[in-house]
Amino acid sequence: MEKTTISATKYGMTGKFRAKPGEAEKLAAILLEASRQVSVVKGIRLYAVGRDPKDENVIHVMEIWDSKEDHDQSLTLPETRALISQAMPLIDGKPEGVALEMVGGLGVD
Amino acid sequence: MEKTTISATKYGMTGKFRAKPGEAEKLAAILLEASRQVSVVKGIRLYAVGRDPKDENVIHVMEIWDSKEDHDQSLTLPETRALISQAMPLIDGKPEGVALEMVGGLGVD
Repeated sequence: MEKTTISATKYGMTGKFRAKPGEAEKLAAILLEASRQVSVVKGIRLYAVGRDPKDENVIHVMEIWDSKEDHDQSLTLPETRALISQAMPLIDGKPEGVALEMVGGLGVD
Repeated sequence: MEKTTISATKYGMTGKFRAKPGEAEKLAAILLEASRQVSVVKGIRLYAVGRDPKDENVIHVMEIWDSKEDHDQSLTLPETRALISQAMPLIDGKPEGVALEMVGGLGVD
């Protein structure tokens, strides 16, 4: 294996949202709308929405940004805040998420 | 919000690996080597490696593939199997992961 110098390059997030019963489709639609909105925002690399086939109420989001600052900035945009307001009442409990320092890989480098 | 038809389009995985103490850097290097190997494999879209800044022993991987079949096929390749053999002794406990039906978003569509 070639020598690898590992250093954090980008900012990542994995998010897990549990929708209230019957609301998963609507929540996924809001997150897909969010993905379209952020696609033109500075620093966005990935905003991918998936569902867990083993749990119909669970939606996952994977995000990669050039920096934490770019991510945080996106949360201040009025259109982002509007979507968050739409999504919150559909979510059961607290979203789970992990902020990551992306060290590399396909889609990061 | 525009009308959205939601259907699964691609296959995703989120993986979380806890390295044995002191082995996280080596494990990350192996996963980065895996990302380089899979970058030429049929159906790969994303193979991103990140670390949890709150837990120095934890490494995350986000993957997106055109299909589950493409992902499963990649696991049969000799070079993939060699890297898995290198990684396994560095991992503490059982890797956690969720297979996802990707429904869309930036990096999926």
